[in-house]
Amino acid sequence: MSPLKGNALIGQSGGPTCVINQSLVGIVQEAVGADAIEHVYGALHGIAGVLAEDFIDLGRESNETLEAVAKTPCAALRSVRKKPTREECEAVLEVFKRRNIRYFFYIGGNDSAETAHILNEVAVAANFDVRLFHVPKTIDNDLRVTDHCPGFGSAAKFVASAFMGDNQDNRSLPGIKIDVVMGRHAGWLTAASLLAREHADDGPHLIYVPEVDFTIPGFVADVKRMFEKHGRCLVAVSEGVHGPGGEPIMTTGEVDSHGNAQLSGSGALGDFLAAAVKEGLGEGLRVRADTFGYLQRSFAGYYSEVDAAEAREVGRTAVRVALAGDVPHGSIYIKRGASADYTATFEVTELKNVAKETRDLDVGFLKGNCDIHESFLDYVRPLVGEMPTAARLSDFKA
Amino acid sequence: MSPLKGNALIGQSGGPTCVINQSLVGIVQEAVGADAIEHVYGALHGIAGVLAEDFIDLGRESNETLEAVAKTPCAALRSVRKKPTREECEAVLEVFKRRNIRYFFYIGGNDSAETAHILNEVAVAANFDVRLFHVPKTIDNDLRVTDHCPGFGSAAKFVASAFMGDNQDNRSLPGIKIDVVMGRHAGWLTAASLLAREHADDGPHLIYVPEVDFTIPGFVADVKRMFEKHGRCLVAVSEGVHGPGGEPIMTTGEVDSHGNAQLSGSGALGDFLAAAVKEGLGEGLRVRADTFGYLQRSFAGYYSEVDAAEAREVGRTAVRVALAGDVPHGSIYIKRGASADYTATFEVTELKNVAKETRDLDVGFLKGNCDIHESFLDYVRPLVGEMPTAARLSDFKA
Repeated sequence: MSPLKGNALIGQSGGPTCVINQSLVGIVQEAVGADAIEHVYGALHGIAGVLAEDFIDLGRESNETLEAVAKTPCAALRSVRKKPTREECEAVLEVFKRRNIRYFFYIGGNDSAETAHILNEVAVAANFDVRLFHVPKTIDNDLRVTDHCPGFGSAAKFVASAFMGDNQDNRSLPGIKIDVVMGRHAGWLTAASLLAREHADDGPHLIYVPEVDFTIPGFVADVKRMFEKHGRCLVAVSEGVHGPGGEPIMTTGEVDSHGNAQLSGSGALGDFLAAAVKEGLGEGLRVRADTFGYLQRSFAGYYSEVDAAEAREVGRTAVRVALAGDVPHGSIYIKRGASADYTATFEVTELKNVAKETRDLDVGFLKGNCDIHESFLDYVRPLVGEMPTAARLSDFKA
Repeated sequence: MSPLKGNALIGQSGGPTCVINQSLVGIVQEAVGADAIEHVYGALHGIAGVLAEDFIDLGRESNETLEAVAKTPCAALRSVRKKPTREECEAVLEVFKRRNIRYFFYIGGNDSAETAHILNEVAVAANFDVRLFHVPKTIDNDLRVTDHCPGFGSAAKFVASAFMGDNQDNRSLPGIKIDVVMGRHAGWLTAASLLAREHADDGPHLIYVPEVDFTIPGFVADVKRMFEKHGRCLVAVSEGVHGPGGEPIMTTGEVDSHGNAQLSGSGALGDFLAAAVKEGLGEGLRVRADTFGYLQRSFAGYYSEVDAAEAREVGRTAVRVALAGDVPHGSIYIKRGASADYTATFEVTELKNVAKETRDLDVGFLKGNCDIHESFLDYVRPLVGEMPTAARLSDFKA
């Protein structure tokens, strides 16, 4: 196929990650200098910036700036939470025609894949040749097809390190501690807390994910059991836990305009659970709750090296595939090698395979109602890389 | 003075820090092998372990274990929140006599200095010769005499890195974001958020510390002003902010048995402030709150190198001073050199100078009602050391 000549456009969408700019820089570095691509533009605030033609010229950035941006968390092109309507997608196509955009790379989660999918349908119907690629990112790790998502490894390292420290804190000053982890639909990130458990009595002693129904009486009984066993209890709970049939846990608290409880950016769930434990087990207990919040997706200076390298590579791969032209549109995914030593290759799948639906934590990784199976460690360790030290004294009796 | 012969005992007390075990290991390494010291014991859970004679033999630990423990956050000897009564201090003295404890090192905050001070009075009255030293630690940085406290630099680095990331997050997806930082009495740690501000429009746009009276109407007006200026607003607020005369901010929420609002281990203050902004400026605004919580004092694998080295050195200094015997009891403090290049020396002061009272943020570091003066950066930068990258694209117009 003869190369399609024109300009390239990049956008970033949805909640940020610590390595989302690695993908941006991977795309820019691969696209700048490609014969078929004249200008490499960035749209500010994702699809909103495309509609407003709010473009910047990424081809003029120095490599020094790009490398520094790659190490900076959160969308350097700024982000947006917007799913365009079909009419807006048609308006986008007019922008593409006017600016001769022949390559569009959209870095985001399943909503961004859906946007790229609709844009592609509109472009095909209009007979406008444009290569449309979704470049995956999400700390939730809940995209389909891919073994894991860029952004997850770094968030998992943050969560695991937080639990490793909080386990030491809870061991220093025993009590009941509840930590709320991001993940509205899937428990991948909460499951990563398992990495903090080294000794048999280490926390998290209980791990709750949205894939398993959650009830307050069951939770309080679990905490009681662990507190009696260890004299302390550290709990990892996903913000998305819910009762049978998706029933919300909180009987108080704020709801948004769609009636959904506001999960992130609030300590309400943690405080609600702490109050339930106090009510169930006695006011005298030392019960505390922390909600890790945005730090999981944006903390500066702490990330997984593997994750950063893979995020860069999914960006590069998207450009290579787009330029090759054999597959005119799609979503890049990561395929794990079959060998025991971790290896990954970067492949392309159809946009519709990634759009819309999300992927739950594998059933095999669940262990009863309130724990994660050890086999999950083989899955998650290579994505997180080196973990910090958590050593104990030998406690030789004097 | 001829050396005092006997055993050494070490305890850790109060809220943990990421480098509190550096001080422990500094004491052990300096005490093991000293001619005057036969055994080096650790008391589990601080003064409670002393009273219960729950001792471990630290002299038998390998150097490898000690070095790994030094890098592990939170009290390896476990901690306690207990101020012994005078009667209990007399019981402690009986333990000292029975176990021939002639050197006692208590790693903690001002309450621990107070405990050492009372123990010393009791020992002097009983004519029992024991060297009593307080080894400082606190992320709050609110001890008197010392230029800064071991533990603060690492917590400040965590807080500054969190704000650096959250500023990028807030720039990616604009809205109003409130981050609650530890510090019941003093604003040192909250002030460290200033390190995140590099560009003129970077957050935190507002910084509130307990040293300045806080009111909800004033806060809402400040947020409105910043939101109109920047189209977004990132707020750093100390958990200890209060109204004129110490009046609590929250009109709802839990209080402890002394009538104090529970500050740490709850998202209540952040959620309360977010609700106040929504009520004042309109429900449609995107307002979120995170409470950094225990991560500030216990996060594993992220610390200040300078802080770690200084924490080790205060421990070593305590043993050297105790062995020299010229000063039989006291608290170790850090003195900053007068030169522009940061230097520190380790000195000793009387226990009573550090016990009980705390130290507020210097008045000169305050800037109006809701900001910190740039001169604070000269104070805090050397304690934090190297900060992560936060780079922007140049935004060349296309």
